[in-house]
This record gives sequence, structure tokens and C-alpha cells, in this order.
Amino acid sequence: MNPLDTVRTRFEALTDGVMAIAMTLLAVELRVPHFANHASGLVSLQNVPEHLAGFGAFILSFMTIAIFWVNHHQLTQHISPVNGLSRRAVWCNTVLLLFVTLIPFATNTMSENAYNMTSMIIFTFMLFGASASFALLRSFIHHESLTRISAMNSLVGPVLYAIAIIALLFIPVVAHIILIIPPLFYFLPRSKW
Amino acid sequence: MNPLDTVRTRFEALTDGVMAIAMTLLAVELRVPHFANHASGLVSLQNVPEHLAGFGAFILSFMTIAIFWVNHHQLTQHISPVNGLSRRAVWCNTVLLLFVTLIPFATNTMSENAYNMTSMIIFTFMLFGASASFALLRSFIHHESLTRISAMNSLVGPVLYAIAIIALLFIPVVAHIILIIPPLFYFLPRSKW
Amino acid sequence: MNPLDTVRTRFEALTDGVMAIAMTLLAVELRVPHFANHASGLVSLQNVPEHLAGFGAFILSFMTIAIFWVNHHQLTQHISPVNGLSRRAVWCNTVLLLFVTLIPFATNTMSENAYNMTSMIIFTFMLFGASASFALLRSFIHHESLTRISAMNSLVGPVLYAIAIIALLFIPVVAHIILIIPPLFYFLPRSKW
Amino acid sequence: MNPLDTVRTRFEALTDGVMAIAMTLLAVELRVPHFANHASGLVSLQNVPEHLAGFGAFILSFMTIAIFWVNHHQLTQHISPVNGLSRRAVWCNTVLLLFVTLIPFATNTMSENAYNMTSMIIFTFMLFGASASFALLRSFIHHESLTRISAMNSLVGPVLYAIAIIALLFIPVVAHIILIIPPLFYFLPRSKW
Repeated sequence: MNPLDTVRTRFEALTDGVMAIAMTLLAVELRVPHFANHASGLVSLQNVPEHLAGFGAFILSFMTIAIFWVNHHQLTQHISPVNGLSRRAVWCNTVLLLFVTLIPFATNTMSENAYNMTSMIIFTFMLFGASASFALLRSFIHHESLTRISAMNSLVGPVLYAIAIIALLFIPVVAHIILIIPPLFYFLPRSKW
Repeated sequence: MNPLDTVRTRFEALTDGVMAIAMTLLAVELRVPHFANHASGLVSLQNVPEHLAGFGAFILSFMTIAIFWVNHHQLTQHISPVNGLSRRAVWCNTVLLLFVTLIPFATNTMSENAYNMTSMIIFTFMLFGASASFALLRSFIHHESLTRISAMNSLVGPVLYAIAIIALLFIPVVAHIILIIPPLFYFLPRSKW
Repeated sequence: MNPLDTVRTRFEALTDGVMAIAMTLLAVELRVPHFANHASGLVSLQNVPEHLAGFGAFILSFMTIAIFWVNHHQLTQHISPVNGLSRRAVWCNTVLLLFVTLIPFATNTMSENAYNMTSMIIFTFMLFGASASFALLRSFIHHESLTRISAMNSLVGPVLYAIAIIALLFIPVVAHIILIIPPLFYFLPRSKW
Repeated sequence: MNPLDTVRTRFEALTDGVMAIAMTLLAVELRVPHFANHASGLVSLQNVPEHLAGFGAFILSFMTIAIFWVNHHQLTQHISPVNGLSRRAVWCNTVLLLFVTLIPFATNTMSENAYNMTSMIIFTFMLFGASASFALLRSFIHHESLTRISAMNSLVGPVLYAIAIIALLFIPVVAHIILIIPPLFYFLPRSKW
């Protein structure tokens, strides 16, 4: 195992650890439903819409973190022995992880506040922060090998989320579409990696 | 370390992370018993059956996740340099992890609702979802090397859990047997791997 | 990376994951102290002995899990390409992890019940279960290479904890000594590994 | 994979696991804000300063654990086949992890007690303990290769935190500066590693 592999291994291990925990904790924060047993044998659930909303937020956040993980995983393939892993790339990754660990908190804030505007701004801000630090991390790792096209690609995420934050103040439905479209887009079949 | 090993390593690392956390969180959600100290020096536990039920659900869920882990671990041995790891296999694995992270939630729902029908349907549905996405993942990884026999084997899980969901509505005892039998079956001694 | 390394890697990864989470969750379950601010500028802590007891239990459990981790780590060095990793070793490890995940729960039960006899029996039983499954795991991995001396060594743990459980019923102080001595013993300097 | 790599791998895996979990749990312990919806469409947040304080503590603790992780990661590069990993280094690392797992608890204690003196002493003590065991770990791993200069460097952390604890009793503002400066210092650009 050469030194670079070791650096990369632990860099990836911390990232995988934080993302795996954030994904699992999302489900822990789902409120456990309480069912009322009726004499007729039927069971009724109070607050169905509230539980469905919590569930929707869980799936959205889970998939969004998974997308960050898949992209991170593709990015670290490009860490070459020549470029190595710079100190600023490690710190940029730390900021990315900071935003990722805040996603369960923001998801919970959104569920607990019935998806009001402020809670959705907080949630979208975390996604903005994560995607902006991801774009920065990508530029630190790629250096000169980064083409203009892929550089612009990596700005799509932060720009979309910035638009979503502004849209929340004026036309919320646009923000909702922006939050839901990228995960769906990533599920489309593409080439191997 | 060749590129494939790296892909596989992180794919496995995220899966191991999510499964390890889900298994550990199951125990965290056990309700801490409170013992009443009697003057006679004897100690009494309130709600013994409730605690035993919670414990039973913990062991069942722990072993079920462990079985998924063992199978996943056997499956990833088959990722060959030729077939590689397709994009759809990674997303299928993400859906598998989504269902696995919901198992602690479903276990808790079941314990908190005294194993009523609705809570057991939710729990069984998570196992159905996990085993169905596992069967799909297996078909994506094996490609043509998958024999008809092993393809049918991987459908046993989802089919059994689907039957269990229907059985819960009419003959609950059949569902209980289906939930308990597969874990016991896996403990039987078999060949090395 | 040959197949055995992969098997060992994930076997170790799941174990490291579960143990790391169990160790970290121990601290999460510590009750946050609330300090009363007096006009005099002095700060007083209510329930000092209760917090100290919770802290003592945390350190004891943390060190006990760390000892299991160190031993597990030494044990897996002995997994040779010839012996491999048998199916029963994997399941035995799963049972070990089941007892390890129950240690935070048992620690919490002990703290919440003011170290009464029943809660200490539950705690000691988890340590008994973990050390018994560890002894079994060791015998599965070592096979014939296990000398009679090391086989007897691995029985020290479960036998001591079994004695502690019985001692709790009659002479609790003996049990307390048994719970504290092994961790101290492991801190003594020894040869490298 | 030679034996040393395996030892190092698991040593690093446990450390990465504990640090990743501690970092993620910091965010979980943030109190979810509740917004009051006014008829005017405006949203108001109660206890803004309390939430900001909690957030500040989160970022400080997250970055402090990240700094320990980066340093640990640089340190383990120096584990050479000749020196190996001594038993005392493993135990020293365990004590380091014990202090790291207590950082989320100490952060929470600080937030819940409105940053009073006692809670800040507890928080600073955990950082002191972690940096002191880190300095000890560094001396165990470097052996004779440790120059006098780098030995003194590794004492900067514990000495600063010891001064901060004393400062908290007399001139709290000095302690606040000491707690905030080291994280900022680490963000300055430096050479690759």
C-alpha cells in the first residue's frame, strides 16, 4: 500500500462513516406512529398527513446524501499520485461533511415545523452549502485536468439550490420542484463508472 | 490497488457502515427497565411481557440485518473486473440501504404498538423491500453468470415476505412463522465461503 | 487483494463499526448535568453522586468494549488462508456483536436503577455473553493451532463473569472487584503484537 | 497485505469510526427550533441567541474533532514496519477516543447550561485530555525519530488547554480566545502531506 492509497483510504473512510451515520440517523428521527385499536379490529392512525410528510422528507434527504456519496466516490477516483491530496482539499471535505451532518437536523426542523418557509430555507441552505463545498472540493482535486465543461457541471448544484432559496421567498412551488428534480435525474440509467 | 478494488471497497464500506449503525441503534431503542426496590430486598420489574416483546423484536431484527450483511458480503465476491459495478447496481444498493435504515424504525413501531396488525405489516414491508431490492441487486451483479436456480433462490425472500404481509391480514400465525424461520435456517451449519 | 483479505476486511469492518458506535453511544447516554447558578458566582451541581456513578459506568463499559476490540483485532491476525473463515465463525461473531450492542443498554439500565442488584446482573450477563461468544469464536478461528494453554486462557473471561453473576446474589463486593480487575489488568505493559 | 498494514488498518478504522460518529452526533444534539407562524406570513424564532450559541458550539466542536482526525491521520503515516504499533500506543489511542466521545456530551452540557463557567471547564477539560493523550500517542509512535522540536510542538495543545482551564476561573475571555484560535490556525494554507 503506497502512501497515497493510505491518505485516500482514511479520507474516504471518514467520509463514508459520516455519510452512513447521517443516512441511518435520518430514519431514527422519524416519529414512531401510534395506532389506536378499535373494537372492530380496524386500526386507525392519527395524523396520517404528518407521518407522510415526515416520510417524504426522509426519502428526499436520504437520496440527496446518497447522491453526494456517489459523486464523492467518483471524484476520489481522480486523486492521482501526481496531484495528491492537498491540505485545502481535506479542509474543504471537512466543511462538506459539516453540511452533511446538518442534513438530518434540517430534515427534522422541516418536519417539526410543518414545512413552513423558514424551515425549508434552512434545509435548502444545507444542500446549498454541501453542494458548494463539493464544487470547491472538485476544483481542488482536479486542478488543471478539469475541463471547462465539467467545471460548469459542478456549479449546477449550488446555483440550483441558491435559486431554490430565493424561490422559497416568492414562488415556493419552484423551490419544491428544484429539490425533487435532481434526485430523480440521478436515477436515470447512465454509463458504468 | 486497482480501480475496481477501490469502487468495491467504498461500496462495501458504506453498506457495512449503514448496517453496523442500524444493528447498534436497534439496542439503543430498547426501553430501559425501571426496577422497584422492595423493602424485602427483592426487586420487581413492571411490564415484564412488554420488555420481553421488545427484546424479542430486537433479536429478530438484529439477526435479519446480519443475514442481509452476510449475503451482501457473499454477493460482492462476485463483482468481477469484467462485469464491474454498474450505476444501477449502486442505486439498487442505495434502495436496499434505505429499507435497512427503516428496520430500527419499524421494530420500534412494532414494540410501541404491542405488535398490532398494522405495525407488523409495516415491519414486514421493510423486510420485503430490503429482500426485493437485494434480489434485484443480485441480478444486476451476476448478469449472465446467474443460473436459473440461484435466480429463483434469491426470489425466496421477497416472495415469503409478500406472503407474510397477506397472511397478517387473515392468518397472523403463518406470518409469525415466516418471520422467524429464515433467521433460524441461516444458523444451520453449512460449507465455508 | 485476494479473496481471503476481502472476507477478513468486511468481517473486521462490521466489527469495528459496531464497536466504534457502541463506544460512542455510551457517552451520548450520559445525562447532561444542570448547574444552578448562585448569586455568589459559585456553581452547584445537583445529584453529584449520581453523575459520578454514571461516569464510572461509562468508563468501565468503554474500556471493556475496547478490550474486546483489542482482542478481536489480535484474533483476526490468525485467520490464515488455510483455515479461512468458517460460516460458524461469522455467526459466532454476530452473536458477539449482539452482546456488544447491548452493553450501552445495560450500562444505561445500571445507571438509571442506581446500581441495584438486578441491573448489575443484567450488565454482567452481557459481559458474560460477549466473553463466552468471544471464547467460542477464538476456538473456531484457531482450530488445531490452539494450544491447551491459550484455550484455557480464553475461558478466564466467561468463567470470571459467571462467578460475578453468582457473587452479585450473595457477596456483591466480589462481583464489583471482578468487573474492575480485568480492565486494569489489560493496561499493564506487555510485549508488542 | 502485510501484518503491519492490517494492524494499522483496524487501528485507523476504529479511530475513523469513533470520530465520524462523534462528529455526526454533534449535529443530532442540536435542539430543533420551533417557529411560530404569524398571520402576517412572517415567521418568528423564539430563543434566537440560544440557538446561535448551540450552533457556535457545534461548529467549534466539529472543527476541533476534525483537527484531531487530520493530525491522527498524519501521525499514523509514521508507523513504520521497524517500530510497529506498541501495546501502549493502542491503549493511549483508546484513552484519546474516550475523550473524543465525551466531546459531544461536553458540548451539550455547555449549550444546556448557557456557557457557564463549570460547563466550559468540563468542555475544555475534554479537549485537554484529548490533546494530552494525543501528545503521548505521538511520542509512543515516533520513538527516537521524534525531534526535540516536534516533541515541543505536540505539547502546545495540552499546555494551551491547561492554561484555558485556569483562565476560565479568572479571565474567561482568554480561555475563549484559546478555544477559538487553534481551529482558525489550522485552516491556514500549508504544504501538502
